[in-house]
Amino acid sequence: MNLLVESTRDIREFLRGDEETLVVTHHSPDGDAIGSLTAFGGMLDQLCVPNVIAVDDTPPMKYSFLPGFDRIVNLKAHPVGKMYPRVVVLDAGALERIGQAKSAIGPGTRILNIDHHFTGEAYGHINLVEVAAAATSEILYEICAAWGLEITPQIAYGLYVGILTDTGRFRFANTTARSVEICSKLIALGVDTSFVTERVYFNMSVDAVRALAKALTSLEFYFDSRVALIGLGGANHSSETEGFVEHACSIDGVVLAGFYSEMEPGLFKVSLRSRGRVDVNQIAAGFGGGGHKKAAGYRFRGDLADLKNSLMQAFKVGLDADLQGNSTSETAGILPWGRSTMVEN
Amino acid sequence: MNLLVESTRDIREFLRGDEETLVVTHHSPDGDAIGSLTAFGGMLDQLCVPNVIAVDDTPPMKYSFLPGFDRIVNLKAHPVGKMYPRVVVLDAGALERIGQAKSAIGPGTRILNIDHHFTGEAYGHINLVEVAAAATSEILYEICAAWGLEITPQIAYGLYVGILTDTGRFRFANTTARSVEICSKLIALGVDTSFVTERVYFNMSVDAVRALAKALTSLEFYFDSRVALIGLGGANHSSETEGFVEHACSIDGVVLAGFYSEMEPGLFKVSLRSRGRVDVNQIAAGFGGGGHKKAAGYRFRGDLADLKNSLMQAFKVGLDADLQGNSTSETAGILPWGRSTMVEN
Repeated sequence: MNLLVESTRDIREFLRGDEETLVVTHHSPDGDAIGSLTAFGGMLDQLCVPNVIAVDDTPPMKYSFLPGFDRIVNLKAHPVGKMYPRVVVLDAGALERIGQAKSAIGPGTRILNIDHHFTGEAYGHINLVEVAAAATSEILYEICAAWGLEITPQIAYGLYVGILTDTGRFRFANTTARSVEICSKLIALGVDTSFVTERVYFNMSVDAVRALAKALTSLEFYFDSRVALIGLGGANHSSETEGFVEHACSIDGVVLAGFYSEMEPGLFKVSLRSRGRVDVNQIAAGFGGGGHKKAAGYRFRGDLADLKNSLMQAFKVGLDADLQGNSTSETAGILPWGRSTMVEN
Repeated sequence: MNLLVESTRDIREFLRGDEETLVVTHHSPDGDAIGSLTAFGGMLDQLCVPNVIAVDDTPPMKYSFLPGFDRIVNLKAHPVGKMYPRVVVLDAGALERIGQAKSAIGPGTRILNIDHHFTGEAYGHINLVEVAAAATSEILYEICAAWGLEITPQIAYGLYVGILTDTGRFRFANTTARSVEICSKLIALGVDTSFVTERVYFNMSVDAVRALAKALTSLEFYFDSRVALIGLGGANHSSETEGFVEHACSIDGVVLAGFYSEMEPGLFKVSLRSRGRVDVNQIAAGFGGGGHKKAAGYRFRGDLADLKNSLMQAFKVGLDADLQGNSTSETAGILPWGRSTMVEN
């Protein structure tokens, strides 16, 4: 990814002066949201721009080790209360996604939007949307490099967490050579990748492990074992089920997977994963939910039998359509190889 | 890591001429063993050195996507049958570890040893042992760079798998900026990190998932939940339990974890993990096993109650000794930061 010099120049111009600046990200923040937030706060500090970094609700405690995390304002506990002259929105494809932070935006507020999601919604006065970047944190690294900022621990750990989590530990197809190269540079500066990975990925609660045991015990297969379903019905619901669906989607031969948990009697949350060509975003949308092509979710009212029947009907439509399409390397087992992304030095 | 120019020159000299060369690695081969084997085969092809690549037993099928995998000779099915003038030993800290490949070594055989384990055993006529390298594959990358070899798909995928698996997906403390930088270069050349990660880490068998569900159901805690134990007793034994112990060791607050499986009535295999300062290699050694400081294992004869009692006694000794030691950042929660490893360009 090569950032346009004009973009970084426009952003530098936008941030000129010492007006207090609010930096926000999307609600239900993930690692890239929190990491880019703390990193950008550190970048503004270095530019001597007074800043407040904030999210719509309590930030996830697993990122509490990040330098700058303590500075994040929880807007549910501490509402905004005033308009800001400048608002920076990170990692949010639509302005709706910043939640109550919107009340900080008045008629005179200028907005800077830095993101890597393509939504076509250019809601900022300046928009730097780089869809080739694996993470918003990756874009912030390029900005630091363009401006010659010092990569402090606060900036480095934030950016590392952002790239690590948005690439799923370099697992997802968005991972480029540049994403990994930036991580190598952040490690060279002092980021402890072992420490970060342990804190972010290897700190399950006891309840979560017990819930996982129950969910895995419920494992069912459909359609010649191309579909796997696990879940927590009845009183087994747990709020800590992040990543459970991955276990169903990690089984040899499985191309579609689902996980359900019964939040209250007759109300389920459902997570879907695809690792073939079936678009689970489309399937979830059919139930009033959404997400991405490979990861999506929805809520379902009814009983468990209805949930399974309706989901399997939708999966069947997807699988049938897929079989009629052309075979690609994804199913034909051809080794992918290509010099598509060059490392820049 | 800077390889000594002399080392690579000596190795080039060792490989001069067209004598048939046997390339082997340690028994029970892991990703670095298999990856460095196929990569080195590709390197020798490029040098026009006739070569046979071999392991002591069936190589794990999860690496079957690697170009060159089909060329690996299983010495259990096809015994060596002759002496070789040259043998290259990869990733093996001791000559014992190559198993029956030893029968290819006669009085006139010259041995090249390339490894990253420190054992002090310089069993080769030439020994390139770089303990700063996260993987033997990382050393092979440096050799390719020093010799100006073309990084073909066979070499690139082998090296990527080697570094990825030996660093535990960049999780273990051996991961350096250079390890990650090499991976970024391999991706730039064409390695599909998503494809590799899916094949190596996200292809569990159905039996393995069912066994994991049972093992997690058995979860027990000891010593104020600093120790977690899971296992498969009685008829629940499964041969596919790789990584199960990690689930016990990923629980918040756990510093020592164990996994057992009853291979036959009264005979257990036991895996141990530490993520604090307690040395599980020492504990396993006390039961006649071994491994590393953070990951070790042993076999136990007796009943399950005896296994648990003896293991917890040994854990208690380790935990007590640890409490008397000094507190380090590992427990004090200080953010690690340092410019210890610089990226070389």
